[in-house]
Amino acid sequence: MKAIEFIAIGSELLNHRRQDSNSTWVAEKLKTLGLFFRRKSIVGDVREEIVKILKESFDRSDLVIVCGGLGPTFDDLTRDAIADAFDVPLEYHESIALEITQFFKSRGREIAPSNLKQAYLPKGAVSLTNELGTAPGIKLTLQAKNTEKVFFFLPGVPRELQVIWNTFIHPQIEASLQGLGKVQTRRFVTAGVPESTLNDRTEPFRAKYAEAEWTILANLSQVEFLVSHTSIEYLETISSEFVTLLADDLVGLGDTTLESTLLKLLKDRSETLSLAESMTGGLIASRLCAIPGASTVLVGGAVVYSSKLKKELLGISEEMLQLNGPTSEAVAMEMASSLQIKSESTYSIAITGNAGPQLDSYSKELLGEGHIAIAGKAWGTTKKFHLHGSRLDIQTRSSALALDLLRREILNRNP
Amino acid sequence: MKAIEFIAIGSELLNHRRQDSNSTWVAEKLKTLGLFFRRKSIVGDVREEIVKILKESFDRSDLVIVCGGLGPTFDDLTRDAIADAFDVPLEYHESIALEITQFFKSRGREIAPSNLKQAYLPKGAVSLTNELGTAPGIKLTLQAKNTEKVFFFLPGVPRELQVIWNTFIHPQIEASLQGLGKVQTRRFVTAGVPESTLNDRTEPFRAKYAEAEWTILANLSQVEFLVSHTSIEYLETISSEFVTLLADDLVGLGDTTLESTLLKLLKDRSETLSLAESMTGGLIASRLCAIPGASTVLVGGAVVYSSKLKKELLGISEEMLQLNGPTSEAVAMEMASSLQIKSESTYSIAITGNAGPQLDSYSKELLGEGHIAIAGKAWGTTKKFHLHGSRLDIQTRSSALALDLLRREILNRNP
Repeated sequence: MKAIEFIAIGSELLNHRRQDSNSTWVAEKLKTLGLFFRRKSIVGDVREEIVKILKESFDRSDLVIVCGGLGPTFDDLTRDAIADAFDVPLEYHESIALEITQFFKSRGREIAPSNLKQAYLPKGAVSLTNELGTAPGIKLTLQAKNTEKVFFFLPGVPRELQVIWNTFIHPQIEASLQGLGKVQTRRFVTAGVPESTLNDRTEPFRAKYAEAEWTILANLSQVEFLVSHTSIEYLETISSEFVTLLADDLVGLGDTTLESTLLKLLKDRSETLSLAESMTGGLIASRLCAIPGASTVLVGGAVVYSSKLKKELLGISEEMLQLNGPTSEAVAMEMASSLQIKSESTYSIAITGNAGPQLDSYSKELLGEGHIAIAGKAWGTTKKFHLHGSRLDIQTRSSALALDLLRREILNRNP
Repeated sequence: MKAIEFIAIGSELLNHRRQDSNSTWVAEKLKTLGLFFRRKSIVGDVREEIVKILKESFDRSDLVIVCGGLGPTFDDLTRDAIADAFDVPLEYHESIALEITQFFKSRGREIAPSNLKQAYLPKGAVSLTNELGTAPGIKLTLQAKNTEKVFFFLPGVPRELQVIWNTFIHPQIEASLQGLGKVQTRRFVTAGVPESTLNDRTEPFRAKYAEAEWTILANLSQVEFLVSHTSIEYLETISSEFVTLLADDLVGLGDTTLESTLLKLLKDRSETLSLAESMTGGLIASRLCAIPGASTVLVGGAVVYSSKLKKELLGISEEMLQLNGPTSEAVAMEMASSLQIKSESTYSIAITGNAGPQLDSYSKELLGEGHIAIAGKAWGTTKKFHLHGSRLDIQTRSSALALDLLRREILNRNP
């Protein structure tokens, strides 16, 4: 197995709170090719430190992925460090300068002089076009004693790194692996059930198929299983049985999310949705709206904190709020059914509660408690929840619960 | 300045999605002492890889913080690797074994034989009691040519690492710094101006104060400058001049964001805000609502995609939409002023446009184009924008533009 390492360059990753998410993304990609990192490192924007680690990585690795430091500003030093480390001159490429100038022109912006720094490449290197930004990636192949060492230098902006990886690097590495047994991975996304419950429930199943490599990953909205093996038949057997085992808790397979699954479900049924949010303050709407095509399903909604707006936008009376409390089941149901009628959407979800950190003086509920209501044409359902964590944790968890409740409701009502 | 590095040991951090959060926590702690990492690395649970990086770090660093691999299981290899790397034998300590046995007893649990592996220490090392777990930390001081090298080995479980750090390591490092100049950092957050423009505009200033260390960081919403130096007076001079240079583009200093600055500005003035969102689909509302106390300022808002909801919630007529187009300046202004009146908020922001990726068949505007409108009591202002990137990029950028537009408007109207 060839030695592969990852180097992230950036003082913000070294001594500030920003996390390096690029290496975990690349690790997932490499895993689909059956490849793994032997080491990951982070160094700051200090020329001699970058030079040092580039030289070290040349000695110990066969394939080196480097990200960061390719931008136009004073602290982007990767190009200069490459020149120092491997004693290669930087050469100005008119074609790259043209690409960068075009990029700015297409966006109606003036090019800043510092951007042309990005037209320099180490001698012998290949430029990898960056569709989403001005810093092209760089491929540099160096001769070692008996072998070649390959360096890929990528911009630190995740979406730019990802498009260059997918367009150029992944296919090249895949092609170089011809004939080797590739590890395949299947992904199963679930929602609405805690990680530890799923862990225990699937333990006998995972023991039965222990030849495969299993990973369980949770975030605030969903829990996913990754299962890897070299045999596709073996994976297919696992997959069909695992789908049955997970049943309704399974949101979907592959590269899906709770949001995109729900949007697709609604779109396929030509149904629409509206949202009346209090404690999540627009988070449910924005999670759905981040997905292309959301507006064909989501007609819109209301974010209602004040009593005034609850009345003006949703017609909820002051008496109703006084009688039940603003975070009650009754108010949640009224918000949903009022909006469903106003918007003429197939479904309306409402959510109300207290996300903290302080208790709303108005509220009768405890911190983290709240209600979700779903209204359809002449029917409705509600669910109470009690969640823990920070304000944003509670907002994220409750918005996932609301989306998952509608998903299950649609499946149950239309089996 | 002494060279400090951090090494995390664990295959889950190297090739799976788990993030190393210990190094960012330790970095924050070191920062309070004016100390910074020169490098961070991650290696897997592979004995020879751990041995290799321990030897390297001995050569290049003065203080090395290592976490992980101290547990009782088969893949905890740090102790053995220390023995190999520095050629020191492991010695069994009855007193540590007793501590571990007591820990289990106090929790009513039987000790597993593998746990006694944790009673072994490299010869000459000092054990650092772990109140929260069974793996004690280890301090190892090694003699180099003219100096001493200090290694701290810590468990990978964050709360255990943190208590050992706070109890033993932090006070020791602090005491050893007597008389040395600590590095201080100032942070300046800006919005509304691209990173490359700010870079070029601040270049002469940074050249004037080149003794300080400068970092520039951008995301889709804001650009920030970090400046570090050992002299507080020098930093104060820079800071007061830099605030003047950045002028209105400066959102704030220190640990602030565009959202929290705007919320504070409104709260201090006892003013309120409502939001009418189309293309950002609730993103502006949810960004503000993620901040504790947002509901005292944000009364709520409307997310309006469909014409039906534009009419029902904001009273915008079909004729107006037909005449101007749904993503027009006129409709944005009408959305804002209608909501400002309905909500009785001091300000209302409206945003409309096309976030892509496909053009809305309704729209006369180009992809990424849109309008922001702000309505106050008997006044209003609008701004057109044309943004690029993915759907989520455009939503994030335009929501930041809207928040920044209100910030500037408030400052300009109330100088």
